[in-house]
Amino acid sequence: MNIPPDIEEFIERARVARLATIDSEFKPHLVPVVFAFDGSHFFIPVDKKRKTTKPEKLRRIKNIQDNPNVALLIDEYSEDWTRLAFVMMQGKASILRTKIQGDIQLEQAYNKLTKKYPQYQKIGIGEMCIMITPEKVVSWRNSHL
Amino acid sequence: MNIPPDIEEFIERARVARLATIDSEFKPHLVPVVFAFDGSHFFIPVDKKRKTTKPEKLRRIKNIQDNPNVALLIDEYSEDWTRLAFVMMQGKASILRTKIQGDIQLEQAYNKLTKKYPQYQKIGIGEMCIMITPEKVVSWRNSHL
Repeated sequence: MNIPPDIEEFIERARVARLATIDSEFKPHLVPVVFAFDGSHFFIPVDKKRKTTKPEKLRRIKNIQDNPNVALLIDEYSEDWTRLAFVMMQGKASILRTKIQGDIQLEQAYNKLTKKYPQYQKIGIGEMCIMITPEKVVSWRNSHL
Repeated sequence: MNIPPDIEEFIERARVARLATIDSEFKPHLVPVVFAFDGSHFFIPVDKKRKTTKPEKLRRIKNIQDNPNVALLIDEYSEDWTRLAFVMMQGKASILRTKIQGDIQLEQAYNKLTKKYPQYQKIGIGEMCIMITPEKVVSWRNSHL
């Protein structure tokens, strides 16, 4: 789907997003994530920030395997509530693996991620990546205040 | 359930949280929210920030009425990734209405909210409030980096 330019700019500016998945008991699960956006897909690496479990056993990964429906929220909070804004994407997620995939799209996404986050010079970006294809975009701005 | 003191402090410090609900098609829905925490419940007012629909028709409200399972995320992002941290609560939500309820718990919550957010001196806090009772708390800190 096409993302309007002003929304794309808002997305490009963001350093962090929040990812919602649904577990097998139909309960939502939430984590903050770093991401790259290539204009049509979101890429969220399962990187080497501290994990208490193996990547493939992470709740977000298991949830996506059971139910690919996810939501991703990008928002800007300010104490000046006239400046509040958010963009929420609902879409389908899939799991890419560098070793298996080795595709050009994933390679470009990793390039985008390492460029956006110099932190990846110090910690590993991992070999697993969540790709989200947005199906619905809701945007909101508290402009009437 | 009991929330450990260090997590409670983290929660108290936060000005914004992200609320995940699930819609009737088992898709997650996400919005940023302001909140108050009374030590055992979270209170999220359906306030007079710009809404394109009536409070009772808001997606988050309809979703909670269909499925009370929600998740609430509080996180701190920093470009210094050694300082990353989050707390994620999964729990049950219910909808309180001041006109119907008029109970002491809700009154105290509104007092907490208006004290925490002086912005409510300018905009209405509304008559509907989401109350979340946490059932599971996951906390994470990227301390090994």
